[in-house]
Amino acid sequence: MAANSFGEVFRLTSFGESHGQGIGGIIDGCPPRLLIDHEFVQFELNRRRPGQSHLASPRQESDKVEFLSGIIDGVSTGAPIAFAIWNSDQRSGDYDHLKDVYRPSHADYTYQAKYGIRDHKGGGRSSARETIARVVAGAIAKQYLREQGIEIIGYVSAIGSVKLEKSIPVPDLKNVEASLVRCPDVECSKRMQSLIEETKSEGDTLGGIISCHINGMSAGLGAPVFDKFHADLGKAMLSINAVKGFDYGSGFDGVRMKGSEQNDLFVEKEGRIRTMTNNSGGIQGGITNGEEVFFRVAFKPVATVMRDQNTIDSSGNKVLMKGKGRHDVCVVPRAVVIVEAMAAMVAIDHFLRNKIYK
Amino acid sequence: MAANSFGEVFRLTSFGESHGQGIGGIIDGCPPRLLIDHEFVQFELNRRRPGQSHLASPRQESDKVEFLSGIIDGVSTGAPIAFAIWNSDQRSGDYDHLKDVYRPSHADYTYQAKYGIRDHKGGGRSSARETIARVVAGAIAKQYLREQGIEIIGYVSAIGSVKLEKSIPVPDLKNVEASLVRCPDVECSKRMQSLIEETKSEGDTLGGIISCHINGMSAGLGAPVFDKFHADLGKAMLSINAVKGFDYGSGFDGVRMKGSEQNDLFVEKEGRIRTMTNNSGGIQGGITNGEEVFFRVAFKPVATVMRDQNTIDSSGNKVLMKGKGRHDVCVVPRAVVIVEAMAAMVAIDHFLRNKIYK
Amino acid sequence: MAANSFGEVFRLTSFGESHGQGIGGIIDGCPPRLLIDHEFVQFELNRRRPGQSHLASPRQESDKVEFLSGIIDGVSTGAPIAFAIWNSDQRSGDYDHLKDVYRPSHADYTYQAKYGIRDHKGGGRSSARETIARVVAGAIAKQYLREQGIEIIGYVSAIGSVKLEKSIPVPDLKNVEASLVRCPDVECSKRMQSLIEETKSEGDTLGGIISCHINGMSAGLGAPVFDKFHADLGKAMLSINAVKGFDYGSGFDGVRMKGSEQNDLFVEKEGRIRTMTNNSGGIQGGITNGEEVFFRVAFKPVATVMRDQNTIDSSGNKVLMKGKGRHDVCVVPRAVVIVEAMAAMVAIDHFLRNKIYK
Amino acid sequence: MAANSFGEVFRLTSFGESHGQGIGGIIDGCPPRLLIDHEFVQFELNRRRPGQSHLASPRQESDKVEFLSGIIDGVSTGAPIAFAIWNSDQRSGDYDHLKDVYRPSHADYTYQAKYGIRDHKGGGRSSARETIARVVAGAIAKQYLREQGIEIIGYVSAIGSVKLEKSIPVPDLKNVEASLVRCPDVECSKRMQSLIEETKSEGDTLGGIISCHINGMSAGLGAPVFDKFHADLGKAMLSINAVKGFDYGSGFDGVRMKGSEQNDLFVEKEGRIRTMTNNSGGIQGGITNGEEVFFRVAFKPVATVMRDQNTIDSSGNKVLMKGKGRHDVCVVPRAVVIVEAMAAMVAIDHFLRNKIYK
Repeated sequence: MAANSFGEVFRLTSFGESHGQGIGGIIDGCPPRLLIDHEFVQFELNRRRPGQSHLASPRQESDKVEFLSGIIDGVSTGAPIAFAIWNSDQRSGDYDHLKDVYRPSHADYTYQAKYGIRDHKGGGRSSARETIARVVAGAIAKQYLREQGIEIIGYVSAIGSVKLEKSIPVPDLKNVEASLVRCPDVECSKRMQSLIEETKSEGDTLGGIISCHINGMSAGLGAPVFDKFHADLGKAMLSINAVKGFDYGSGFDGVRMKGSEQNDLFVEKEGRIRTMTNNSGGIQGGITNGEEVFFRVAFKPVATVMRDQNTIDSSGNKVLMKGKGRHDVCVVPRAVVIVEAMAAMVAIDHFLRNKIYK
Repeated sequence: MAANSFGEVFRLTSFGESHGQGIGGIIDGCPPRLLIDHEFVQFELNRRRPGQSHLASPRQESDKVEFLSGIIDGVSTGAPIAFAIWNSDQRSGDYDHLKDVYRPSHADYTYQAKYGIRDHKGGGRSSARETIARVVAGAIAKQYLREQGIEIIGYVSAIGSVKLEKSIPVPDLKNVEASLVRCPDVECSKRMQSLIEETKSEGDTLGGIISCHINGMSAGLGAPVFDKFHADLGKAMLSINAVKGFDYGSGFDGVRMKGSEQNDLFVEKEGRIRTMTNNSGGIQGGITNGEEVFFRVAFKPVATVMRDQNTIDSSGNKVLMKGKGRHDVCVVPRAVVIVEAMAAMVAIDHFLRNKIYK
Repeated sequence: MAANSFGEVFRLTSFGESHGQGIGGIIDGCPPRLLIDHEFVQFELNRRRPGQSHLASPRQESDKVEFLSGIIDGVSTGAPIAFAIWNSDQRSGDYDHLKDVYRPSHADYTYQAKYGIRDHKGGGRSSARETIARVVAGAIAKQYLREQGIEIIGYVSAIGSVKLEKSIPVPDLKNVEASLVRCPDVECSKRMQSLIEETKSEGDTLGGIISCHINGMSAGLGAPVFDKFHADLGKAMLSINAVKGFDYGSGFDGVRMKGSEQNDLFVEKEGRIRTMTNNSGGIQGGITNGEEVFFRVAFKPVATVMRDQNTIDSSGNKVLMKGKGRHDVCVVPRAVVIVEAMAAMVAIDHFLRNKIYK
Repeated sequence: MAANSFGEVFRLTSFGESHGQGIGGIIDGCPPRLLIDHEFVQFELNRRRPGQSHLASPRQESDKVEFLSGIIDGVSTGAPIAFAIWNSDQRSGDYDHLKDVYRPSHADYTYQAKYGIRDHKGGGRSSARETIARVVAGAIAKQYLREQGIEIIGYVSAIGSVKLEKSIPVPDLKNVEASLVRCPDVECSKRMQSLIEETKSEGDTLGGIISCHINGMSAGLGAPVFDKFHADLGKAMLSINAVKGFDYGSGFDGVRMKGSEQNDLFVEKEGRIRTMTNNSGGIQGGITNGEEVFFRVAFKPVATVMRDQNTIDSSGNKVLMKGKGRHDVCVVPRAVVIVEAMAAMVAIDHFLRNKIYK
């Protein structure tokens, strides 16, 4: 029932609206004595921030994190870690024209239907700014996981109709960050940028796919029935704004394989049990097998287009909504760090849960 | 941490192994005064049961449900509803050859890695028999939902490389059940059957896709951030054995759409707020908008093939595993009722959660 | 919301009515590879069973536990452990006269008010038979705790106005079990028995107090704010039928002490940090300090008296309710094992939760 | 596992240390469209604040609440309500002498044992300042409950050996607040004040008892087995700093009653089902029966005394700890609002949970 919390042991509860005082959260269950690298948290927030390139939204959001509790001399104490990112340009008047309008494929109408009240400025909780809290929690989770030898790296593998056809066995953060669209393949990256520029000139928007890898997971994480590792990963990804699909390992493509092709045969390599292929995406029966975990996340195109759209207002009157404002053509490159953050939260949660069995 | 429980308000906790005394569960939070139609529960169990056609496994499992508590004179009392389906041919000796072998793409190795102990007979909790408990809980959830005007119907839309290309706007249970593969399109159904028979003769196995629709949902179900309706649906589906992917609405295909194509424009029809298209799959910002909810679930092929496979045993020795036993070539047709059951559990849970806001 | 579940990591979900098919439960989160001593479970059930002495109810309940899952070759597998104790004399006709009557200080009226339906035979879930499930789960928890050097022992320290004045520093199970009223002090035990016999002849009933000790707990169990070790203990005890109060350490008596008397001064003994006194009852700031945990639980007298009582029926009519049936004068001696069981569940839960910090 | 959260539907997650940046929390699940009376929240905070009288601590804490999210135009939106009370005199140097010392009957040692790290300034999470977050959440809960006709009122019924012997059938907030010790009986209040002044001159401290009443509860709140209304109340109270005991209705005194005295006979009054007496404290079988709920909470004396005490430091060396600093002789009067706040959180939680059954 705690609809604004995620995780069982390492648990983020988030708060805030895009046009209120700020976005923040409380992390309950962070292990004590963890060195919190404030700069790394900020680095991750910067990866999510709009305005990173001319391709992205020109809004300037500073997004400086402030920690409010749970850390002493740079080290976690085991107490809840509260944090906030204060909004700099809150409650401005730009949104009055949206007060009674239900924007197509936004959450305006469904919020009104659920709560009978709605914060029309920036969408309230449905704003993508809410994901800031996830990035902070994910950055802390990553620091713990790194100490356990676990690394998480995502990249953009499709934007609109442009798809990265080759697989990237070991994606490298430098190569990902070197690309304006966070696609580590230089040639494909260029085609994606061209498509974004072209689509921008049309006042239209794009979706895409993020691929993500988790390396260094030991075997045994996840639970057999409802809390399968990939089921929790899937919920985590599907809870991100604009996500429409999730698969892992051979995924939807695996449907066309025969069992004899799909099966990952076991072998022993250097004293460890390994599989020859990895169609399982590192997870068998819901539990990690020590191979690389990888998965894909599908994002729909941004709902706010720079075109006129017919819609209705809260009284049911027809309204022509003008396309205006400062918005991304494609948020997928900025969402890479959010996908990684949610993956990190699932990974640390199952890692800590599994300590009970030791 | 309750890894064998699903749901917040309407909550199933399941138990049992395929070769133990039985499979069962406890449903906590079933609303009181609900008429429990025992025959409908059995009807649903029969839809999951192996041996329904010559295409499926020839094992005979009776799968009669016995209710142990929470029902008086056929009506729920608000107390937990416990139930069991007793195994008829438990703990037979057919599985001794598997005692130390890690079957490819099964959960044998990962269970051993997690628990340090493993029930090698039938896979313990990783057996697909575990889903019996879900079908019972789902059948009860469906009865409650039906009283609210909510219907759930799934069907097979792909088996291996055979895909149903046309969309089925209003799937009909009769048409689904009339098909041996639960595909309501007669022609496509035939091609699927041919593929299954051909694959069976090769000793190989097949995966597929189940499409599922939820009709009659009012607007306002689901929560905005982590407990989005589709995030909970996704976790539910990904927790089913052999599932590798989930999407809803325009899903993975929506990636290639532009925002102007993807957006569902609002209109007023007969005093209700509706959308002209339904790329959102009935969910916007994680909350239902009153349109039909629909989604797809990808299943990998069955891991047990009737072919020899190289693998290793728990000591790391190479083993040639012979293909033998009684197994389905394709479980997807039998999984339709499981998909529906999990969808019903998510729907009733959010329906009941939403009563708090009334 | 899972109102029939207790515990976070080691979690019991219980089911059953006193006059249905049986009482049982599912234990989720029992550590794997634990040897389950079936005889010890039965020994504990026998301690709870009515009809142990001429002082107790003459009903014969066999109360044989049957395990349904999660155990293989006598060892836990990490899978949920389901169990049932089948009722032998279910749904008999003795209760028809109670169908529409609200018995004083029973849950008849409140159940009707909550659920709009009520199982009048034996009180449904409010029956003390429900505690059978707790005793089974507690017996398994005790076996795990014993391996960690933790022992739990309770005894009766008051029945009605007869109170054990002396404190029992190290209560011994043999001495407790040697007493018909489970009071290890021979003289006091006799006075309690006399009071019970006297009260029985009057057709009246008695309450009492159970004192309970947990020995061998290491320092560090419990959480600082809401999940204080004694807060979870308190909830556990107050969830037992007929319990009206709970205190620990100096408890209600500590109210009259000055701070300088109450404070437990630290000393070092044999390389360990200890306290000179133990008014804290082994818990400081909600976290165990390694000293003995002890607490008291107050039970009201049994509500079913062998006297006529005025009450009303569900239509609001005045009714004279005759005292009849087979009931205990005082259930407190039989409740000792229930108190211990709930304490064991709290202790194992916090023990396992604490492994995350290691 | 979320050890800093309380409640299932109306859920507070709290953060902060007494000498960090502030204390605060997130309320998740507050019903939308509730008018939040900021002044009432502040009134409640002022009741908890030190320095209210010469009897209490002379520290000046402003304790102004700032709401960070979830409220628009003074009304709750259904989004999480975050709030903070910033500390004014944080991280001062007064606490260096406590860095390595384990204060008797404080949580210093147990924190170190649990987390391996400790915030020695003001006790970290074990500080009573943490209860500020509870008071804010309780104040909001009270506003919702008031709309349902439910009122909660507590008062001091004992300080040290001075006990209010008469019962207060309908306590009045004005009379409570008129007393410096929050005891509505003028004569008893004076004796309590004298005792506090006398004890202060001795450099010692006092405990006490708070009695609390909940009026206007409808029948049907609470759950029959583990989540009994009084079990959740008990946990709530026992989670407050320095609480050592809880009872309700006839409580510990009921132990000495016979069943025939204890039982509350049902009668019909003005078309409602009532009880003639209320030894049940308004709760039968864990569910409210519509009568007044009342309970008692026992507080131990403050651990910080103005006397020298022998203790040890973290290296095990004997240390003489000087009594100094600014501390209350008796915190019980200030704790009344905390007891009420926790009661309000339990009441709103069960009230909202019960809507599912409607």
